[in-house]
Amino acid sequence: MKHLAAILFAFSASVAAQTPFDAPLSKDHPVPDQTRGNRQSYSALKQVLDRGRAAVTDAQIEELKKHQIEGLWGAMGEYRETNYVRGFKSTRPGERLVGRALTMRFLPSRPDLVEASQTLAEESGWDRRFYIRAGEEANPNDVVVVDLGGTGGGNYFGDVTALGIKMRGAAGVIIDGGTRDLAELSGDQFAGFPVFARFFDIHGNTWVGTEWNVPIRVGEVAVVPGDIVVADEGGILFIPPQLVAEVLKTANASLAQEDYERDLIEQQKYRIRDVYPLHPKLREEFEKSRDR
Amino acid sequence: MKHLAAILFAFSASVAAQTPFDAPLSKDHPVPDQTRGNRQSYSALKQVLDRGRAAVTDAQIEELKKHQIEGLWGAMGEYRETNYVRGFKSTRPGERLVGRALTMRFLPSRPDLVEASQTLAEESGWDRRFYIRAGEEANPNDVVVVDLGGTGGGNYFGDVTALGIKMRGAAGVIIDGGTRDLAELSGDQFAGFPVFARFFDIHGNTWVGTEWNVPIRVGEVAVVPGDIVVADEGGILFIPPQLVAEVLKTANASLAQEDYERDLIEQQKYRIRDVYPLHPKLREEFEKSRDR
Amino acid sequence: MKHLAAILFAFSASVAAQTPFDAPLSKDHPVPDQTRGNRQSYSALKQVLDRGRAAVTDAQIEELKKHQIEGLWGAMGEYRETNYVRGFKSTRPGERLVGRALTMRFLPSRPDLVEASQTLAEESGWDRRFYIRAGEEANPNDVVVVDLGGTGGGNYFGDVTALGIKMRGAAGVIIDGGTRDLAELSGDQFAGFPVFARFFDIHGNTWVGTEWNVPIRVGEVAVVPGDIVVADEGGILFIPPQLVAEVLKTANASLAQEDYERDLIEQQKYRIRDVYPLHPKLREEFEKSRDR
Amino acid sequence: MKHLAAILFAFSASVAAQTPFDAPLSKDHPVPDQTRGNRQSYSALKQVLDRGRAAVTDAQIEELKKHQIEGLWGAMGEYRETNYVRGFKSTRPGERLVGRALTMRFLPSRPDLVEASQTLAEESGWDRRFYIRAGEEANPNDVVVVDLGGTGGGNYFGDVTALGIKMRGAAGVIIDGGTRDLAELSGDQFAGFPVFARFFDIHGNTWVGTEWNVPIRVGEVAVVPGDIVVADEGGILFIPPQLVAEVLKTANASLAQEDYERDLIEQQKYRIRDVYPLHPKLREEFEKSRDR
Amino acid sequence: MKHLAAILFAFSASVAAQTPFDAPLSKDHPVPDQTRGNRQSYSALKQVLDRGRAAVTDAQIEELKKHQIEGLWGAMGEYRETNYVRGFKSTRPGERLVGRALTMRFLPSRPDLVEASQTLAEESGWDRRFYIRAGEEANPNDVVVVDLGGTGGGNYFGDVTALGIKMRGAAGVIIDGGTRDLAELSGDQFAGFPVFARFFDIHGNTWVGTEWNVPIRVGEVAVVPGDIVVADEGGILFIPPQLVAEVLKTANASLAQEDYERDLIEQQKYRIRDVYPLHPKLREEFEKSRDR
Amino acid sequence: MKHLAAILFAFSASVAAQTPFDAPLSKDHPVPDQTRGNRQSYSALKQVLDRGRAAVTDAQIEELKKHQIEGLWGAMGEYRETNYVRGFKSTRPGERLVGRALTMRFLPSRPDLVEASQTLAEESGWDRRFYIRAGEEANPNDVVVVDLGGTGGGNYFGDVTALGIKMRGAAGVIIDGGTRDLAELSGDQFAGFPVFARFFDIHGNTWVGTEWNVPIRVGEVAVVPGDIVVADEGGILFIPPQLVAEVLKTANASLAQEDYERDLIEQQKYRIRDVYPLHPKLREEFEKSRDR
Repeated sequence: MKHLAAILFAFSASVAAQTPFDAPLSKDHPVPDQTRGNRQSYSALKQVLDRGRAAVTDAQIEELKKHQIEGLWGAMGEYRETNYVRGFKSTRPGERLVGRALTMRFLPSRPDLVEASQTLAEESGWDRRFYIRAGEEANPNDVVVVDLGGTGGGNYFGDVTALGIKMRGAAGVIIDGGTRDLAELSGDQFAGFPVFARFFDIHGNTWVGTEWNVPIRVGEVAVVPGDIVVADEGGILFIPPQLVAEVLKTANASLAQEDYERDLIEQQKYRIRDVYPLHPKLREEFEKSRDR
Repeated sequence: MKHLAAILFAFSASVAAQTPFDAPLSKDHPVPDQTRGNRQSYSALKQVLDRGRAAVTDAQIEELKKHQIEGLWGAMGEYRETNYVRGFKSTRPGERLVGRALTMRFLPSRPDLVEASQTLAEESGWDRRFYIRAGEEANPNDVVVVDLGGTGGGNYFGDVTALGIKMRGAAGVIIDGGTRDLAELSGDQFAGFPVFARFFDIHGNTWVGTEWNVPIRVGEVAVVPGDIVVADEGGILFIPPQLVAEVLKTANASLAQEDYERDLIEQQKYRIRDVYPLHPKLREEFEKSRDR
Repeated sequence: MKHLAAILFAFSASVAAQTPFDAPLSKDHPVPDQTRGNRQSYSALKQVLDRGRAAVTDAQIEELKKHQIEGLWGAMGEYRETNYVRGFKSTRPGERLVGRALTMRFLPSRPDLVEASQTLAEESGWDRRFYIRAGEEANPNDVVVVDLGGTGGGNYFGDVTALGIKMRGAAGVIIDGGTRDLAELSGDQFAGFPVFARFFDIHGNTWVGTEWNVPIRVGEVAVVPGDIVVADEGGILFIPPQLVAEVLKTANASLAQEDYERDLIEQQKYRIRDVYPLHPKLREEFEKSRDR
Repeated sequence: MKHLAAILFAFSASVAAQTPFDAPLSKDHPVPDQTRGNRQSYSALKQVLDRGRAAVTDAQIEELKKHQIEGLWGAMGEYRETNYVRGFKSTRPGERLVGRALTMRFLPSRPDLVEASQTLAEESGWDRRFYIRAGEEANPNDVVVVDLGGTGGGNYFGDVTALGIKMRGAAGVIIDGGTRDLAELSGDQFAGFPVFARFFDIHGNTWVGTEWNVPIRVGEVAVVPGDIVVADEGGILFIPPQLVAEVLKTANASLAQEDYERDLIEQQKYRIRDVYPLHPKLREEFEKSRDR
Repeated sequence: MKHLAAILFAFSASVAAQTPFDAPLSKDHPVPDQTRGNRQSYSALKQVLDRGRAAVTDAQIEELKKHQIEGLWGAMGEYRETNYVRGFKSTRPGERLVGRALTMRFLPSRPDLVEASQTLAEESGWDRRFYIRAGEEANPNDVVVVDLGGTGGGNYFGDVTALGIKMRGAAGVIIDGGTRDLAELSGDQFAGFPVFARFFDIHGNTWVGTEWNVPIRVGEVAVVPGDIVVADEGGILFIPPQLVAEVLKTANASLAQEDYERDLIEQQKYRIRDVYPLHPKLREEFEKSRDR
Repeated sequence: MKHLAAILFAFSASVAAQTPFDAPLSKDHPVPDQTRGNRQSYSALKQVLDRGRAAVTDAQIEELKKHQIEGLWGAMGEYRETNYVRGFKSTRPGERLVGRALTMRFLPSRPDLVEASQTLAEESGWDRRFYIRAGEEANPNDVVVVDLGGTGGGNYFGDVTALGIKMRGAAGVIIDGGTRDLAELSGDQFAGFPVFARFFDIHGNTWVGTEWNVPIRVGEVAVVPGDIVVADEGGILFIPPQLVAEVLKTANASLAQEDYERDLIEQQKYRIRDVYPLHPKLREEFEKSRDR
């Protein structure tokens, strides 16, 4: 990101220093009344980000499921340090969750916020309980990603409403917060629908759903709607969709090479250091073997 | 909030059950391009909440400074359980901070988000570093309230940019995250400008400012722009502005009564249980004494 | 609990304010020497609470085992916020533990306390090691509930003494503290006898058993002897025995309704919001269906 | 404590093995009704412990105040590992608190317990709020020691009721839990009355006072009524009263020797290892110097 | 350890007090240049400790695998309080790990340290990545024990290099830090090769291997090269090799006695207190039974 | 560090792959017996690192004291991310500690290690208690830096032995662990001798000093003997001595520029973004002003 930093600096330096300290601020343009009834909550940054987002195919999602998260992570370039989070428990150990992020943000409850969210829901025709909305609006292969305040935060849903979301074809749920009904969610009825949460707790949802499908925070990671989620017990990756094709290509190549390395190690012919990373001569062998 | 809950239930029950499971969703209205250049980030809930907000005068702010936070809290009714947070350290122990919340939300950094925030800032004429923006846009008696991810989160600013905010007349800063330059912020130059943070740390700001003056989260409290902030070492209150007049009235009355109780206790004439709460006869005495 | 609070206030206000600050305190009545040899440790509050406790049948205990803890919790009324705790690990994941609380309280060791507990045990004919006493005094369907200081606290027992308690017919053990012998307790010999603890650790018991079958604290919950314990990986409920009949009735009704809701959701005929909670017309259908 | 352990083992071995597994338990003696109205809650262990407790004079309390807690601790023999706790914050940094423990135990609230504590208070003529009772029953030089569940526990009192306790002549308060009104308690009015707590928080007391002046737990220490409390920012000691005379004697001797060692170190004549501990020849010098 | 303390005191007292404060320090002897190329990092304490270390046979290692860690721990005498640690997660729940400690110490990265470790590796013919070295130098039945800073520390390796270590015949790995590739390490390929770590995380190794096979720290335990490691989900023991024969003898005896006690308890003929510990008469019976 | 990484990779790739898996390892050279009596514990990496270390003058140390740690940190280049740690409490808030690191490493106690450390000390003529050794071997302007296991670790010393270290002219102490005698260390006698520790606790030192003046770990930072320590309440820096001249030069320049920026901000003539960082034209002005 050093290159970017240089650009940013150049930009801010190019602004004239003659602008006075108390220059009047630009006026805001009025926002049309209908905006607040939009199902996609408005976010200026999301609007900017949306330009140039690539579509990710269901076939790519299937292909992603075959990789360990470490293999995909290694192919994520400068996103490696920013788009991984851990510290979740899964209702379905051993099942890997892959899909498109449908995000939602909650805030702790307070009377005026509850009332405003109810007013907005009534006006706009949705249910103010966002776990119910998710059961009406999620699409196949969506992963519902919920910002609920983390370890000290709130609960999302229970098994009945989880079933509603599953019936929409969603792939699973990531909750940066808690959920009820661990026993049911671990049962057979929810096979293929993993829920990752920070904790499991008996209480119902009390926080207020405030935005639908905007950039949110999960631990120390920013999640953008449409990110491709890959989750297992080792943690969660959020892959920007435009990177998926390249990530898969790189990860596939690494996987082939790692398999080659594993074989060499099992043969016990070479020292580990010559195998990992591949010694130039072994790399040559490896590449020849792939051409066949 | 039981009454409200009843209303909410009645409302959702009144929707016709004949709506099919897969009813088509309403279409979103396009948002005009200029919206994203607005300095006030758009939030549908904030728009709803803004109706009916009362102005809080500088005189009221001065009056609030005279109260202990416990006294104000006791007058906040159903907001008592939702609008208090603790766990911050102040750069200026012993100074109480009171003012109007100017909020801002940050997300952890990732390359696409950094780039989008820079694009937006360029288009719109502000600095993408929100601690710089605060030094250009804060108003007198504002308290800058920053959502930076809490204890495991990011750093906000250092003393040079803090000085910029102070020069705007802002009253102080609440950071749900960290800040640099503890030594300078504790020095004489910053008298009367307390900064409350979760931690103090040497690093610069790396998170991305994503929204300006929208509802944010500070610990397990939702903060709405314009809330009146009252902070000391005992914790932080966020008082909805429309409640301030009533809160002050109630808190003033409690204070008078508590002073009366303290006097009685020091006189050692009555048992504590008869003084706290005031025995009906003593209350009568107290009320007579106030009429004089 | 508002109603109760009002009563309490009224009561304390009715005391005459003329009582002087330094009114002489009532004298204590001597307690007979034999009292300290009683197996049930004396607790004034327990004596008051004991009035009106309902018996819980073994059939009811069996019926409770069929419910998820969320279902029972939902039926506990004002006890929902006070009688649930989580954060325990079970030696037998997947087994639900239900029974009557036999409580015991430990304090950290100190020489005079150890000596006094030994003196008392000698006089009275019990073993000062309360995990041994439990193997001599527990009854069938008892759940031994132990206050041992929580996460930073002490260890209760090992597998040999656990076997003693199991042989008495006890249903299992809840330890707000730790235990030894995780491997054995997880083995086949202890099937049907789950132990829930905060941690597993190699050390022996060093704390001092101080009271037998009095109100104790487990995390942030007060447990009263005779409470009905229901525990699984989702947490632990303590149901006052007089509520059990009503809790079962309500939970059974909820269960029927939730099954109905699940069916509706799987049929995908209605929107989730019309199903959860049931739309009045669907509720009508549901009630008709039950009458048949 | 090895000696004690040996005695205990010998004792339990001397019981005849012929006692059958299911020997009938001894019957409990009925406890007279008046017992529950006693101000001192009944505890069999306390009754045993009370035999042989030495009185501690106010002069001894004054003498204890002159010592650093490390010096007293070093003189406590086998109680060193069991009677020290840390992790508290004081409202009055720099003030050392010394006095006699008046203990009280709280449990988390639940409706039946609240009701029973109110019934008991009504019958017996005390206030069920134990912070009020403390303001009516504490004696001069008492230190009120409160078991309120520790870091995750409840709040004890506020400044008005604290004033009541102070007016009784109590020396201060130790709360294994929290308190309100940090600002007031830190103010001049409370000089000489330090309050040590785990945290400071705005809420009122919600837990239930269940026992008055029985052995309680503070962190990982058992506190017995009448223990001598010595507290400063370095932690808290609980000295059994019968040890006080000996502890003072030993601590005074150590203090004289440490002063001698400090002098030697400042003279820089000897190596540190010869001074600490005192080399036999230097010890001889030291003892001669004291005889003069 | 009281006896030892007495010796130590006597020793230091025997040094003459006439040595002046500023006695010149002894000069260091130059260390030969080749020393730093030694594969076994030099540690003066290890050199002292190495005298008298007993060899542990593979047969003894097999015998140790049959014991629960509690049984071995009970036989470790004064090492019980110093050589046990817990708080690790295993990649292979249910598999017990036993072998000889091959230790290594890592420090957090800094540029000069990285460069020096690379220089040293080049000079000396090993790989500076100590997880690669372990794959070249570990011996059969070794347990690689790694000091990587604990819960907040670094990552050790991934599955490819783990395979290298496994192929050397090592029994498994203990990491006081984290590792990648939880999914692979949990897979069939690694059966019989458990890895115990504080956490699982996606990142690669970034810390610097600084010493090879010296005394290290794992949590609050000092581990000496050659210690016998015994690990399962209940925690980890480090048994000094010279104790192994005695530990096995004692543990075998205890096991026989515990089996006898379990039988007695299941017969329900005696009270638990007479069985645990064995009443003298029952012990007599037990010993007779063994003589047959 | 990318450049370095490339070198490292190239190096390891240049090793011939023909080396067989089980190539015999090089033999270790015997280490002379006298080595273990050296006061400076032997560390191969320290030997490598020592080449090229620059001397830091007392004048430079004085100059460093004038800087805030943030200013120095900003000048540390690639060491910024690796050589800073926070989370310590000082016995002397407001005093900045600067000096040369004299490091020592402790391990948790175990009987064989205690005995070996005593044997070694006897042979070699030092005291096995490293806090005593520090009082005999520290030099003026040394900062004693102690690895004692961090938050869960051991205690270092008390005020009597601290006095010994202070009398040697040492500047202060950094303990990654705890210490006794907070009250004394905070007193006037220790003015100018700050002690930074993780916690304050009453117990004596029980860990074993194992190495003297080798690279150690403090939190997540590696500290090399001779590093320049700069500590205040904002955290601790460890500056490699060869960087000090450059760090001071850069920090002095930054300080002048920040003062210029502060002036500009107080003049309120320019927007903050044009001042921080300095707009090219303002930078020109600034540089002109310095030439005068």
